[in-house]
Amino acid sequence: MRSIKLTIAYDGSNYVGWQVQENGLAIQQVLEETWTVFTNEKIRITASGRTDSGVHALAQVCSLQTNSTIECKQIVRALNGNLPLDIRVLDAREAPDNFHAIRDAVGKTYRYQIQTGTVHDVFDRRFRWFVPRSLDVVAMQQAAKYLVGTHDFSSFEAAGAERNDSIRNVTSLTVTPSSPHGFEFIDIEISADGFLYNMVRNIVGTLVVVGRKRQEPEWVQEVLRAKNRVLAGETAPAHGLFMVQVRYPH
Amino acid sequence: MRSIKLTIAYDGSNYVGWQVQENGLAIQQVLEETWTVFTNEKIRITASGRTDSGVHALAQVCSLQTNSTIECKQIVRALNGNLPLDIRVLDAREAPDNFHAIRDAVGKTYRYQIQTGTVHDVFDRRFRWFVPRSLDVVAMQQAAKYLVGTHDFSSFEAAGAERNDSIRNVTSLTVTPSSPHGFEFIDIEISADGFLYNMVRNIVGTLVVVGRKRQEPEWVQEVLRAKNRVLAGETAPAHGLFMVQVRYPH
Repeated sequence: MRSIKLTIAYDGSNYVGWQVQENGLAIQQVLEETWTVFTNEKIRITASGRTDSGVHALAQVCSLQTNSTIECKQIVRALNGNLPLDIRVLDAREAPDNFHAIRDAVGKTYRYQIQTGTVHDVFDRRFRWFVPRSLDVVAMQQAAKYLVGTHDFSSFEAAGAERNDSIRNVTSLTVTPSSPHGFEFIDIEISADGFLYNMVRNIVGTLVVVGRKRQEPEWVQEVLRAKNRVLAGETAPAHGLFMVQVRYPH
Repeated sequence: MRSIKLTIAYDGSNYVGWQVQENGLAIQQVLEETWTVFTNEKIRITASGRTDSGVHALAQVCSLQTNSTIECKQIVRALNGNLPLDIRVLDAREAPDNFHAIRDAVGKTYRYQIQTGTVHDVFDRRFRWFVPRSLDVVAMQQAAKYLVGTHDFSSFEAAGAERNDSIRNVTSLTVTPSSPHGFEFIDIEISADGFLYNMVRNIVGTLVVVGRKRQEPEWVQEVLRAKNRVLAGETAPAHGLFMVQVRYPH
C-alpha cells in the first residue's frame, strides 16, 4: 500500500464539518466519494483534525492508503476535476509508510478572523465574526501573552469533551489588527502542539471579553488557573475559524 | 426636498446588477423598497453607474431626494436593519441641493481581481477571475502604460453601446501582483474621469492577452488606434470587478 499526504483547502460554509454526520454533507464524505469515482477504490481519508460545521481550512492535511498506482500530479488533477468548487486539493505527495495525519502531527496553527465596527464587510461576512463594537486590541494582546506556554487548558475545552490530558503547549498567540478599505479587522493566530475541542474558539471568546473591557487582561490567568470552562468567555462562532497549517516531523 | 448622498457596498453575486430588470432582483429595487419600509415614501435612488449583473461595489455612491426628516445616522441604521446581508449602507449624509450621483461625478476608480495558477482559492472564487496559467505581470504593466492618458477608447467599449463621445482620461492604471498564502493574485486598478460600457472588463481581457504572451505590450497601442472592438481581448467576467471609489467636486 502507498501512503499519500493530501493538502486541501475548503470553504466550510456549506458542510457539516470534516466528519461524516447524519444531518448533512461532510467534507470527508465528498472527498472519499470523489476518490472512488476515478480509482474505483473505497478508502478511508483521515484529516489531521476534525473541523466542525462551518469551519474553514487554508491547508488541512489528510492521509490515505491506496493500492492505486495513479501519479500524485494526476491525483490533484482528478480530484479537483470532480470535487465541488468549495473544496480544492492543493497538493498530493508520497508519504512515509503508514503516514497518519492525526497521529504524526506535531503541531498546528489556526487563525480566527474578527471584524469590529458598526457595519459588516459584505465580502468577508462568511469568514469573519462580526462584533458590532470596537475592541481594545492592546488589552487583547496583553491577555494573549498569559496563554503562551505549557498550561492545562481545561478552562478552554468544550464542556463534556473530557480528555485525559488537557495540557498543551501554545508556542505562539498573536492578535493583529488591520484596516483594509476602512474596515477594522482583527486576526488571531494560534500555534500549539495540539488543541483541545473548541480550544481556539473559546480562547477567542475570552480575548473578546477583555477587548470589550469587561475584564482586565490579567483575568485570563485566573481563568486558566481555575480549570473550569464556565469562567471563560463564550465560544466564538465557527465561521471565523481557519485551519492554517499542520506540522509533521518529516 | 433634502438631497442625500448614500455610500453603499454590495456583493453582486446574487443580483441582476444595479438597475431594475425583468429577469431577477436588482440592487436598486431592494434599496428603494427598503427605503419605503421605514419612511412610507416611494422614491427613486440613483447610482453613480449601473453595475452589471455579478459586479460588486466597495463604495458605490447613490443620490436620493426625500421629504423625510429622518436623521442621516438613523438612515444608515434603518436601511441596514432591513437590507439583506449582501448590501450594506456605509454612510449617509446631507448633499448639496439637487445632488445627482451620475451627473455630478468627476471621476471613478474600479478594481479588477484575477487569480492565476493551477488551483483556485476557495475563499476568493466569487471575487476573482481564475486564469489557470501564469501571466507575465511585467508585460501587463508595460501594456497598461499605453492606456494612461486621454484617448478614444472605442476599441474597449461594448459592441452596440455607441456613445457619441468615447474619449476618456485614464489618470491611473496599475497592475499589482501579490501572493497571500501561496496563491498568485493580480489586482488591476483603473481611475478615469468616466468609463464606457464594459471598458474596464475589456481592458482587463486585453491585458490578459499580453500577460499570456499572445501579443507584445506595444500591441495595445494598435488596439487603441484602431477604434475597433474586435481587436481587443475578450471581456473579463463580471465577478472579478469592483467599483472602488466615486469622486465628486464637493
